Amino acid sequence: MILMDKNKFIKRSIEIACENVKNNTGGPFGALIIKNNQIIAEGANLVTATNDPTAHAEIVAIRKACEKLNSFQLTDCYIFSSCEPCPMCLSAIYWARPAGVFYAAVAADASKVGFDDSFIYKELDLEKGQRSIQMQKIENIPIEEVLKPFEMWDESVNRTKY
Amino acid sequence: MILMDKNKFIKRSIEIACENVKNNTGGPFGALIIKNNQIIAEGANLVTATNDPTAHAEIVAIRKACEKLNSFQLTDCYIFSSCEPCPMCLSAIYWARPAGVFYAAVAADASKVGFDDSFIYKELDLEKGQRSIQMQKIENIPIEEVLKPFEMWDESVNRTKY
Repeated sequence: MILMDKNKFIKRSIEIACENVKNNTGGPFGALIIKNNQIIAEGANLVTATNDPTAHAEIVAIRKACEKLNSFQLTDCYIFSSCEPCPMCLSAIYWARPAGVFYAAVAADASKVGFDDSFIYKELDLEKGQRSIQMQKIENIPIEEVLKPFEMWDESVNRTKY
Repeated sequence: MILMDKNKFIKRSIEIACENVKNNTGGPFGALIIKNNQIIAEGANLVTATNDPTAHAEIVAIRKACEKLNSFQLTDCYIFSSCEPCPMCLSAIYWARPAGVFYAAVAADASKVGFDDSFIYKELDLEKGQRSIQMQKIENIPIEEVLKPFEMWDESVNRTKY
């Protein structure tokens, strides 16, 4: 992808972020998905507008693009985001497997206006007992029952791998 | 929450996971959200059925619960999952802020049947240049333009913080 196109797409992601704040539909973040040098989906942060804590701009755009492509993979696609992805979006990007990600602002810029995801990165690296949200394995369920879904999956002949 | 209820809810999450494999609607994962000792939402992994790479059981359940509660926060809620959350779901959990998370299987169990999220955890800890998906800041956009969405957010009087 040539630099001129990269600039055009990243500028559009910033524009989406600005429109979102102006329209009062969510946080100051925008993203888009490119395939064959064309925009196939755009997304803005819709957390508050849709009461969905997972509706970050990248995730909104990924879901739309996948719907359009009729695929759960973003093969040969590029994600442009007005800001460096948070750990949730970054992990979603790994599951969606695009070819690359380009961004404008960095996490430190977002942090200055109250969006601090460094906290989540730190929590992910902690042992479960040390985390600020209680996380506990339920220990007294028979292991055969715990592993039953995986056993069924392993034996399923109709399964669609992902 | 008493142990008997924890067992009941975790068993239900395993049941959802088994039904999902049986119905061929997605991967072997189930989750539910509890508030005041009642199930308020259930979710199964719907990645392949809905062409949505973000439709993991926990995220499906979080979205439904938030819709039901008319809130983007899961205050005083507990998440029960048939398996330890992947980094995407774990990060989503931090954004949704429930009181706690209980799970049955561990990541190593899922990994044995092909669901390896340790790869993503490792990638999150790498410097951007070292990651397997290309990630690059676009450097030649004027900083005022890059920061414009954040500036607008900071000055917005109507914004809903989250």
